[in-house]
Amino acid sequence: MSFNTFGTLFRVTTWGESHGPAIGCVVDGTPPGIALKEADIQVWLDKRKPGTSRFVTQRREPDRVSILSGVFEGRTTGTPISLLIHNEDARSKDYSDIAEKFRPGHADYVYWKKYGLRDYRGGGRPSARETAMRVAAGAIARKILGRRVAIRGAMVQMGTETVDRGKWDWKQVPKNPFWCPDAAAAKRWEAYLDGIRKAGSSVGAVIEVVASGVPAGLGAPVYGKLDVDLAAAMMGINAVKGVEIGDGMAVAGLTGEENADEMRMKGGKVAFLSNHAGGILGGISTGQDIVARFAVKPTSSILTPRRTVTASGKNATIATKGRHDPCVGIRGVPVGEAMMACVLADHLLRHRAQCG
Amino acid sequence: MSFNTFGTLFRVTTWGESHGPAIGCVVDGTPPGIALKEADIQVWLDKRKPGTSRFVTQRREPDRVSILSGVFEGRTTGTPISLLIHNEDARSKDYSDIAEKFRPGHADYVYWKKYGLRDYRGGGRPSARETAMRVAAGAIARKILGRRVAIRGAMVQMGTETVDRGKWDWKQVPKNPFWCPDAAAAKRWEAYLDGIRKAGSSVGAVIEVVASGVPAGLGAPVYGKLDVDLAAAMMGINAVKGVEIGDGMAVAGLTGEENADEMRMKGGKVAFLSNHAGGILGGISTGQDIVARFAVKPTSSILTPRRTVTASGKNATIATKGRHDPCVGIRGVPVGEAMMACVLADHLLRHRAQCG
Amino acid sequence: MSFNTFGTLFRVTTWGESHGPAIGCVVDGTPPGIALKEADIQVWLDKRKPGTSRFVTQRREPDRVSILSGVFEGRTTGTPISLLIHNEDARSKDYSDIAEKFRPGHADYVYWKKYGLRDYRGGGRPSARETAMRVAAGAIARKILGRRVAIRGAMVQMGTETVDRGKWDWKQVPKNPFWCPDAAAAKRWEAYLDGIRKAGSSVGAVIEVVASGVPAGLGAPVYGKLDVDLAAAMMGINAVKGVEIGDGMAVAGLTGEENADEMRMKGGKVAFLSNHAGGILGGISTGQDIVARFAVKPTSSILTPRRTVTASGKNATIATKGRHDPCVGIRGVPVGEAMMACVLADHLLRHRAQCG
Amino acid sequence: MSFNTFGTLFRVTTWGESHGPAIGCVVDGTPPGIALKEADIQVWLDKRKPGTSRFVTQRREPDRVSILSGVFEGRTTGTPISLLIHNEDARSKDYSDIAEKFRPGHADYVYWKKYGLRDYRGGGRPSARETAMRVAAGAIARKILGRRVAIRGAMVQMGTETVDRGKWDWKQVPKNPFWCPDAAAAKRWEAYLDGIRKAGSSVGAVIEVVASGVPAGLGAPVYGKLDVDLAAAMMGINAVKGVEIGDGMAVAGLTGEENADEMRMKGGKVAFLSNHAGGILGGISTGQDIVARFAVKPTSSILTPRRTVTASGKNATIATKGRHDPCVGIRGVPVGEAMMACVLADHLLRHRAQCG
Repeated sequence: MSFNTFGTLFRVTTWGESHGPAIGCVVDGTPPGIALKEADIQVWLDKRKPGTSRFVTQRREPDRVSILSGVFEGRTTGTPISLLIHNEDARSKDYSDIAEKFRPGHADYVYWKKYGLRDYRGGGRPSARETAMRVAAGAIARKILGRRVAIRGAMVQMGTETVDRGKWDWKQVPKNPFWCPDAAAAKRWEAYLDGIRKAGSSVGAVIEVVASGVPAGLGAPVYGKLDVDLAAAMMGINAVKGVEIGDGMAVAGLTGEENADEMRMKGGKVAFLSNHAGGILGGISTGQDIVARFAVKPTSSILTPRRTVTASGKNATIATKGRHDPCVGIRGVPVGEAMMACVLADHLLRHRAQCG
Repeated sequence: MSFNTFGTLFRVTTWGESHGPAIGCVVDGTPPGIALKEADIQVWLDKRKPGTSRFVTQRREPDRVSILSGVFEGRTTGTPISLLIHNEDARSKDYSDIAEKFRPGHADYVYWKKYGLRDYRGGGRPSARETAMRVAAGAIARKILGRRVAIRGAMVQMGTETVDRGKWDWKQVPKNPFWCPDAAAAKRWEAYLDGIRKAGSSVGAVIEVVASGVPAGLGAPVYGKLDVDLAAAMMGINAVKGVEIGDGMAVAGLTGEENADEMRMKGGKVAFLSNHAGGILGGISTGQDIVARFAVKPTSSILTPRRTVTASGKNATIATKGRHDPCVGIRGVPVGEAMMACVLADHLLRHRAQCG
Repeated sequence: MSFNTFGTLFRVTTWGESHGPAIGCVVDGTPPGIALKEADIQVWLDKRKPGTSRFVTQRREPDRVSILSGVFEGRTTGTPISLLIHNEDARSKDYSDIAEKFRPGHADYVYWKKYGLRDYRGGGRPSARETAMRVAAGAIARKILGRRVAIRGAMVQMGTETVDRGKWDWKQVPKNPFWCPDAAAAKRWEAYLDGIRKAGSSVGAVIEVVASGVPAGLGAPVYGKLDVDLAAAMMGINAVKGVEIGDGMAVAGLTGEENADEMRMKGGKVAFLSNHAGGILGGISTGQDIVARFAVKPTSSILTPRRTVTASGKNATIATKGRHDPCVGIRGVPVGEAMMACVLADHLLRHRAQCG
Repeated sequence: MSFNTFGTLFRVTTWGESHGPAIGCVVDGTPPGIALKEADIQVWLDKRKPGTSRFVTQRREPDRVSILSGVFEGRTTGTPISLLIHNEDARSKDYSDIAEKFRPGHADYVYWKKYGLRDYRGGGRPSARETAMRVAAGAIARKILGRRVAIRGAMVQMGTETVDRGKWDWKQVPKNPFWCPDAAAAKRWEAYLDGIRKAGSSVGAVIEVVASGVPAGLGAPVYGKLDVDLAAAMMGINAVKGVEIGDGMAVAGLTGEENADEMRMKGGKVAFLSNHAGGILGGISTGQDIVARFAVKPTSSILTPRRTVTASGKNATIATKGRHDPCVGIRGVPVGEAMMACVLADHLLRHRAQCG
């Protein structure tokens, strides 16, 4: 994994800035002969798209994807697939304020320190806009995995609000603007986030992504472990500060007896009696559900003025007016799913290479 | 990152099984002219070594490292450094029990599913023994980073016991067998872990690793982010199930106002007023302390019998007698420090390549 | 090096088929702050462009390049640079003949064997059209190398015709349609190639690329040698079947006395008395001119019918009518220069990483 | 490919200097379940071993290989295989002459320029001794390829002496000290090389390596081409200055009609009527024999004094006394075979990953 490429055999290279003419990616290593059309990708992009509810940024980006290569007569050819989305809502507005001031929580300061210059128009390269291409690549990854593997994400915490895991219902997830699996919680969250939004504030979130139907044996010890690549994938999503597999940070408080996922034969097959491990042992999939979670920090762009400094070394304050997400974690759900799909597709190919 | 190699420019390839003749690694990409002798590596290995207190495995492994290449007249030459440690305590004991039964929480089952066969003598490849080579490589990484960068680890939670962050004192860390920064907690933990140990049980832990003196600008967006590689590095340590940067999973509960690390000019320099970000924004170091945490699950080898199955598809139970760690997290502290060092050294070289 | 990406730190990922909507590439790892505009790239593309003389294909492709990312206010930002060229002369003609028959010397048969399907419209992915993006990437690589390094290519053999090295004059190279450094030879070649062209035949060529001003020390033993990467770079150009460094294949016939490039001090500096090594020893640049040569096979598309088979397993014959190059090696000159530039830029960054 | 690692999925990392305690390699990515014992590797090492005739260096190195990991009960486990050979003939002789003077044709000068220091004992890292580990890795690669693929090398030119291709007989190859396939030529070469040897001189050579039984479809366009990786593999062997596939440099002199490998159906299968392409089209294997050739320069260590300079900037002369090869190309034959095996094994795994 280096720079702007993700993956070993299923490789995704993304490019583009939020306010440039376009963003795009090149997906390399896709097996040949897979049915693929733009609509197969668009359906996932539409889930992530801005402006779908009052709880996400009102930037108007239709995010229409074009396939420029690698597909012939409706099937992948095994050559690189180039995807492109034009930036349509890149308003030529006044950036003089953020050109000079570093927004706390944003990458402004570090880009300037690292590169000596930066594209200060909106988010630039580190904009969450880049994640559209992750979602697009994830759509292709899902095709590689096939129907046997189902990847679903849900928001399990928003700010100080959590879900009741006893009321988890996957069918609720697409029915509320938060991808929340608990109908009662989703209702409460609506009022909660309205408060945050009207205050010009923001909150963080925890997203859980579950992959079912993944065969045992994916993952390559000891530095190409499945959980290593999942951790990298999730931590690399904008604003993520923590990643968990299975019981995650909570394993610290368990005893060996509690943590052991015991096994029994059931109908001639190995069955686990619990899944503290989140479907991964020794870096390799066990055949159980793969369970990953990640925490997204609150959107850094808020109305309340924050203290900062300028590129010329002066103290200043900054407040962000504009079309921002009160909980950027909402749009992180499809992105987390996509990254899970990319990692699994890559490991499926890697496993097939070594173990046939 | 793939298979048994870690890093992009500072590259570590490890090999070896716990009960084979030796373990080792090849460290490639080290800059030339760095003073390096075996004692520089041994000092860190001794911190991780089994048998240093009653709270870690009593396996007797002197773990004496040999440098086989890449160093001439006391200085690195820029060619690959081969390190080797002979396995001395690989007793030829009876493995027939674990040859057939899959130990819950271990990688036995998945190796068998993935490869169709496995080295069942003790831990085999996924043994924590492999981490000795990470510590060895980390010693070289520290040399590359130089004295300006200090990397220190501490245990901040053991089972249900935590530290009082108000009493954090780095000087306490080497004074107790737990690398605990809170003297009072360390005392309590002694009794607590004795209870666990005598019961043949085990507990998990949380380790925190802090790197000070890291310059701003390390890290490469968007898939070669510093936190991406740290997450991969920490998640790849045996038994780790969660990784956090800065406030970690807790950012979900914060508002944008709380989470913002505000900035002021102080003495002509940029100063941050807090460090929720753990020293990383947009995947790039800010110049603040880099703060990473990871959770280690309880040792899977315990005295209490657990239900499992056999390779021939029968139900069984298994209990592990022998020389095991009641809290394997203890030995994870030097390993976490080493992985932090390896990631930072790699990113230092990568940054130098692109930005001079 | 894998699949559609070239380079380690200066990384070029190309995509696109000859008859799809566009071709393009993503250039990653470019240092920030380098002045770059489309015209800087276009000037090199124009050298390679079809239709510049009667000796190259008459396909009409203006090959206008667009920069879609990675450049802000005229300078590189350190983020990936996306380049795109629309395919304008992708006539929707009748491909039924080549859809079914495998053209000898083309990649038709192997793509079909490997992938089970292929984009049969013209060249598809293996079309020489892809090399336009290598030339574009090479233009950026030259910017990284700076003015100190000069990279120049020339054709030294066309079919059975060679140059007289005693009459080598770099100034002649752009003055004839063959990039021939020997004015007298160029004149002869004109008549020679006219004969070939009118016969609907084709011939091969040998290209020599020379890089001057390259500092000593570039190249990383033992698998990242400078000549290893040059060999890979040149062999990867379409239709290339042989690569030489310095005296190349002819070293077999030399004695150790003849082959030694002796050294003397001259004006306080080390001077070599000859350059049989082509500027590379032990995989590392010596500071002398880097000299690489490669042989390009004759264009496979010719008027004379050749025996072949069809996808349905029948014998057939095929002749190619259309706009093809009588000596595709001519357009290989700017491509060879570009690959030299990419390899050197990559190694400059790699050297800087390890050796400061 | 970078630094001291070769290959993408079948990955070989070598380490060691000619006069250090040992040399070795780590072979990663081997499929599990393959029967492997030290004798399987030793048999190939013995072919390359010094001292087997008066025409190769008389250094006495038994080159006994040990397997330190990755094999359990006689089968590969899928984990990294560590191989080690102790250096037994590393005489502690006086190196003061070469410590100060740069030997023309050797890597002395460039290592000093690149790294600022060098291991001046004998060859150091760039010693041909490193190639023993390539041969060892090649033995494992052959196991992956299976019996269906046969890889054979032969010397086709030694100095100014060539073979008569009409008299090619693979059975002759192991019967003379030159791996020469032409019995009459081998006889002539004996007298010829004796003359060179007694004069303290040396000559170059051309080696041809042929792989039969390779299935069509190996190789990944456009930068992971099979011939790209073969070119890199062969050019990376010590002292190699030229690499050819099929007709190689000679394709420049052919017409399209001559160069076309026509196809016919024979017994229901596709048959090529010639093999100018050396079994590779568009970077992908055709199913024909893969034919690669490389030129090895004459051994740089000769008795005749050559002019050079010293590290302190003075003119000097140097002559090499000692145990050297009059034609180092002889020992290059098993090395070339091994590199062919490594490339094919890697591409077999890569193909399986993408195309199943």
